[in-house]
Amino acid sequence: MGSFIGHALPGSFFLIIGLWWCTKSILKYVCKKQKRTCYLGSKALFHRLEILEGITLVGMALTGMAGEQFIPGGPYLKLYDYKQGQWNQLLGWHHFTMYFFFGLIGVAHILCFIFSSLPFCLIKLMLSNALFVEAFVFYNHTHGREMLDIFVHQLLVLVILLTGLIAFLEFLVRNNVLLELLRSSLTLLQGSWFFQIGFVLYPPDGSPAWDLVDHENIMFLTICFCWHYAVALVIVGMNYAFVTCSIPWYVIIKTQWY
Amino acid sequence: MGSFIGHALPGSFFLIIGLWWCTKSILKYVCKKQKRTCYLGSKALFHRLEILEGITLVGMALTGMAGEQFIPGGPYLKLYDYKQGQWNQLLGWHHFTMYFFFGLIGVAHILCFIFSSLPFCLIKLMLSNALFVEAFVFYNHTHGREMLDIFVHQLLVLVILLTGLIAFLEFLVRNNVLLELLRSSLTLLQGSWFFQIGFVLYPPDGSPAWDLVDHENIMFLTICFCWHYAVALVIVGMNYAFVTCSIPWYVIIKTQWY
Amino acid sequence: MGSFIGHALPGSFFLIIGLWWCTKSILKYVCKKQKRTCYLGSKALFHRLEILEGITLVGMALTGMAGEQFIPGGPYLKLYDYKQGQWNQLLGWHHFTMYFFFGLIGVAHILCFIFSSLPFCLIKLMLSNALFVEAFVFYNHTHGREMLDIFVHQLLVLVILLTGLIAFLEFLVRNNVLLELLRSSLTLLQGSWFFQIGFVLYPPDGSPAWDLVDHENIMFLTICFCWHYAVALVIVGMNYAFVTCSIPWYVIIKTQWY
Amino acid sequence: MGSFIGHALPGSFFLIIGLWWCTKSILKYVCKKQKRTCYLGSKALFHRLEILEGITLVGMALTGMAGEQFIPGGPYLKLYDYKQGQWNQLLGWHHFTMYFFFGLIGVAHILCFIFSSLPFCLIKLMLSNALFVEAFVFYNHTHGREMLDIFVHQLLVLVILLTGLIAFLEFLVRNNVLLELLRSSLTLLQGSWFFQIGFVLYPPDGSPAWDLVDHENIMFLTICFCWHYAVALVIVGMNYAFVTCSIPWYVIIKTQWY
Repeated sequence: MGSFIGHALPGSFFLIIGLWWCTKSILKYVCKKQKRTCYLGSKALFHRLEILEGITLVGMALTGMAGEQFIPGGPYLKLYDYKQGQWNQLLGWHHFTMYFFFGLIGVAHILCFIFSSLPFCLIKLMLSNALFVEAFVFYNHTHGREMLDIFVHQLLVLVILLTGLIAFLEFLVRNNVLLELLRSSLTLLQGSWFFQIGFVLYPPDGSPAWDLVDHENIMFLTICFCWHYAVALVIVGMNYAFVTCSIPWYVIIKTQWY
Repeated sequence: MGSFIGHALPGSFFLIIGLWWCTKSILKYVCKKQKRTCYLGSKALFHRLEILEGITLVGMALTGMAGEQFIPGGPYLKLYDYKQGQWNQLLGWHHFTMYFFFGLIGVAHILCFIFSSLPFCLIKLMLSNALFVEAFVFYNHTHGREMLDIFVHQLLVLVILLTGLIAFLEFLVRNNVLLELLRSSLTLLQGSWFFQIGFVLYPPDGSPAWDLVDHENIMFLTICFCWHYAVALVIVGMNYAFVTCSIPWYVIIKTQWY
Repeated sequence: MGSFIGHALPGSFFLIIGLWWCTKSILKYVCKKQKRTCYLGSKALFHRLEILEGITLVGMALTGMAGEQFIPGGPYLKLYDYKQGQWNQLLGWHHFTMYFFFGLIGVAHILCFIFSSLPFCLIKLMLSNALFVEAFVFYNHTHGREMLDIFVHQLLVLVILLTGLIAFLEFLVRNNVLLELLRSSLTLLQGSWFFQIGFVLYPPDGSPAWDLVDHENIMFLTICFCWHYAVALVIVGMNYAFVTCSIPWYVIIKTQWY
Repeated sequence: MGSFIGHALPGSFFLIIGLWWCTKSILKYVCKKQKRTCYLGSKALFHRLEILEGITLVGMALTGMAGEQFIPGGPYLKLYDYKQGQWNQLLGWHHFTMYFFFGLIGVAHILCFIFSSLPFCLIKLMLSNALFVEAFVFYNHTHGREMLDIFVHQLLVLVILLTGLIAFLEFLVRNNVLLELLRSSLTLLQGSWFFQIGFVLYPPDGSPAWDLVDHENIMFLTICFCWHYAVALVIVGMNYAFVTCSIPWYVIIKTQWY
């Protein structure tokens, strides 16, 4: 993962899943409000979408886990190097573990929609679980690195922890659309912050990394983090406007069709 | 912002908005209790007041953002100084960012009262958002300064964080007048503490700043903070007494008029 | 306050108020359960008791504030010593501030029972307020002292903070007898811990203070704190047993009387 | 406790109690869902089981307390060694205190099922109490030890604290099966982590302890902790599948019998 691509991949994943969660929440909320006119709100459709989401998550997690193990120079499932008497590429195993817990969300998705006896909010619980584990691993990820490196990862831990807390709150307080949108925007923030970390530590244009011991850089990245968040909020807001505007059109088209 | 005026301006802003929030909460509460006799509690009036509050917030935020950029010697929207190879006045950009998030509250105000489909508690969420961002920025604002300077800013972060938590709690637990008054009093405390910081670091009478490495000063500012809070509580209490006493008079005058 | 008596006085205060809160909560709970047979549960009686509690609290707070100011060698309301150019006995002013906020609880008690328009849970809010302020002041109370001195005060801050959190939770979740008993037991713990601090720092038998830099003492005081808590829990339990047993007798006596 | 057995014993205890809590929660949940067909869900049975659990807890706590005191070389109820002028085996007293608080849960169990006037959620409160005390004691347990030793105990404190928070949440939000399963899985994690600590500090095969100042070991134990948690989640899931599958069979057998 020590490269720009290694940070861009999870970043893209979180950007996509954040956008998808955001759209899903808005769709559900708007459909509930406009019960009469909405053909999208059919339970069967959402049901199938959730299972699809679960399968996608499991697939992504498996790909990620396999990728971390079998990239050239990866650990190849070897945990301890007996020849050299030391652990074998623990950072790769860290990422492996995080992917595994995100896979568990997908499993919970699938199980919840197959067995109706399972409580539905299991998904939210597994989500907050995965996020807390991710925050815990990242918190113990940067022993002995440079100041700025630690700082950008601390901000990452902060946003993951907040997302986990919001997910846990959703588990307790159900069907609050604003909490779901807040979680979506924090997920978007996490995704774009992964990109930012990539730009700071491994600039893709080949230029050297930023000065890792400069206080001014910390000052800048502080507000940069806020701007990322502002952009995430704006994206969620525009998505809301777009979905609420497009649904009536969709309904009109549907009505003309049949 | 490195002057007495620079701290007095946001201080006045928070004092005014705290007083206004406090009065609004009490008015709403009293009007709900005395449903029969109250002419003030008309929904239309409150509706218009909320939109006005939103417009004022947006206006103030825009003024603040413009002011931070275009004061003489300000950054003039220049983020990076390529000549000197360093960031350009990041502290000004910090304040700029905070103003922006307070502007978002105003936008939420206006949107919520134009589009009835938006959930009403969005305002509370954006408020707690803006406060958390403010606390985050202030927390990373004082790298490498003197002990007392850091201490007074830490207390500022504390009060902002608490206000944000109370606002978030209001988002979850709606229509609790005591939570609203608690938030108002914490906002008043924030405002008066801005003034206190100004007095400590940039005494307006031109005398030198306080001894920034003296433990006794920390001990004093600890209780000074509590006294500010006590005064804020007393102001909220007197405001409550004043409003509840004046409403019956207002009703009597109204009744005699017509 | 730098003496055994100075710690024994607030300790006794918290022990008495803890016992009283505990008894009141149990009485209310039992009376609600045995509605028919209970003559104690008359609203008027509890009403008068609450006002009495408020007056007592105000009285105690005023006595404490006056005592802190006008004991021989006290600050006599002088905050700054202009002759020596330094603050005048700030530790005394710290205690003064804490007493003031406890006085505010009493004021809230009295106001709530005079003006029925005030929300009843204001008392709980002012209580948690006073406790948070107390925790904040104690947290900034021990700059530059010895390790063990700081440790015992940290434990004090811990228990005060927990009591404040429970009181705030009671403000949100009303009429939960177990939360009230938990708060009572934590208040008892606070009281007995004040005594323990007195015994550690100023042994009343005139022997020298404990070794303030010995790690073993910290290890012991850790479990000592737990034992104090266990004793507080046992006292609350015995009080519960005593009150529930004595009420039927009281009822029988009452019935025979008339 | 400074041996592998000393860590394996509490580990086994928490593994057993975690499995039992998990099974009980699932049984209750499934019985509530399949009200008609379920013979297990009789109130009397659960009633007796709860009392049995209480008696077992008290028995285990008494055994543990006696064991800590009267093992060869133990403190034999002597707290202070006057000859040597120092505290007598405080670590043993630490464990003694923890056992005592777990005994209190058992007492609450028994009391709640004997006296119906006691609120039922007292058990959850005492459970969270015992866990918070355990976390507090372990937090102050490792003064002056090596880095890795402190780290594994910090992770133990983390999991105990989380379990305590979940138990407290259960006290507030009743009858949420997922919270109960989460608590069970955290209890299983605590149990297996005790074993892990034993393996790290006192390898049972007689080999020397791990290198206590190696950062790589910390990196490994971070993910090892996550894997323990993953295994605990899988065990809870398999238990759920097993119980839900076996109940219909049990019902069929029962039906054929009579």
